[in-house]
Amino acid sequence: MPSHVPTITAFERSPDRGRGLARDLRVRWALEEVGQPYEVRLLSFAEMKEPGHRAIHPFGQVPTYEAGALALFESGAIVLHIAERHAGLLPQDPDARARSIAWMFAALNTVEPPIFERALATILERDEPWYAARLAKLEDAIRLRLGDLARRLGESEWLDGAFSAGDLLMVTVLRRVAGSPLLDAHPNLAAYVARAEARPAYRRAFDDQLAVFTAASDGG
Amino acid sequence: MPSHVPTITAFERSPDRGRGLARDLRVRWALEEVGQPYEVRLLSFAEMKEPGHRAIHPFGQVPTYEAGALALFESGAIVLHIAERHAGLLPQDPDARARSIAWMFAALNTVEPPIFERALATILERDEPWYAARLAKLEDAIRLRLGDLARRLGESEWLDGAFSAGDLLMVTVLRRVAGSPLLDAHPNLAAYVARAEARPAYRRAFDDQLAVFTAASDGG
Repeated sequence: MPSHVPTITAFERSPDRGRGLARDLRVRWALEEVGQPYEVRLLSFAEMKEPGHRAIHPFGQVPTYEAGALALFESGAIVLHIAERHAGLLPQDPDARARSIAWMFAALNTVEPPIFERALATILERDEPWYAARLAKLEDAIRLRLGDLARRLGESEWLDGAFSAGDLLMVTVLRRVAGSPLLDAHPNLAAYVARAEARPAYRRAFDDQLAVFTAASDGG
Repeated sequence: MPSHVPTITAFERSPDRGRGLARDLRVRWALEEVGQPYEVRLLSFAEMKEPGHRAIHPFGQVPTYEAGALALFESGAIVLHIAERHAGLLPQDPDARARSIAWMFAALNTVEPPIFERALATILERDEPWYAARLAKLEDAIRLRLGDLARRLGESEWLDGAFSAGDLLMVTVLRRVAGSPLLDAHPNLAAYVARAEARPAYRRAFDDQLAVFTAASDGG
């Protein structure tokens, strides 16, 4: 067990209004799953782009993770780091562990890109003449990925054996389309997301992230 | 050292005509860096979508990696698996190792998405009325990422200490914009890519991948 209480960074005022889409949720959730207390340093958008923060996060984003002399960026890498140092997020068996890590990369490199592109397009391209056509293309790409994922999950509870860091990341990706016909077309995927969201560790992480936004809104 | 010679899958006829952009290059390169011999099973596009291959790769893509009872998908996960089992692609120091893994995720989840979207757009959206405007937006996003990356790399040889799996993945991502003004705007990044491409392990991986395409073209 690390002796340092880690410090993570998060949005002072999240663009999603605290609905659990900012990427510090992944790190909070992983820390809650393994029972590791942590501290949070909140950053404004301006502070994220300052040299002090960029020394830790080259792309000027959140979250970061600091523990002792170690400073990490990239939510996927931070979740993997936590999972490697605590029991509960990766299987003991080496082959099963490698497969869980494959699902972590699949979540972030295969499933997330079209889902995140769609989220960006709904903000940045809404007024463009091409918006409808572009959205249709993105949703086709998302449907392809979700169809493959639903077929693989089938009636299993989690992607590969027990709940793992692969499920944790995949669920945070799928939550961006939760409640939309894209996800609801696959009842097994919708149930998978709901099952993960019912985990006490997820609830604590979500509530803590929401509380930051609520406090910022009350104050401002 | 694993006792099994691993088998990877690759395109029988790569859409990039063997120019080193297909993702099996990452896996070939990692295996060459650590001196692990491997076998290659070539797949047609139809074979990639068949149930036999989907049992290994849920999204019906290449590459995959099989060694003994283990079957993995996702190039990032396969490279990490190789790096964990052989010396040469991750530092020994635990903190430095975690930082190298952070660069692996940064390559695939922060730098690759806009670069890959641009590559897709140049194929799929070239005839759309919105193509020029959309390309401009994507290139703005790429410029932002590459500017941050160039600032962090500075005059260093590699991203964090010795050459690592983080550099390996980052270079495979940057190669998609090699020779374009996007990359050439940053001479240190262009030199970083050239430095990586000059590694003997990279050359062997590239030549082997190209030979597959050349053989297929000669035959067909």
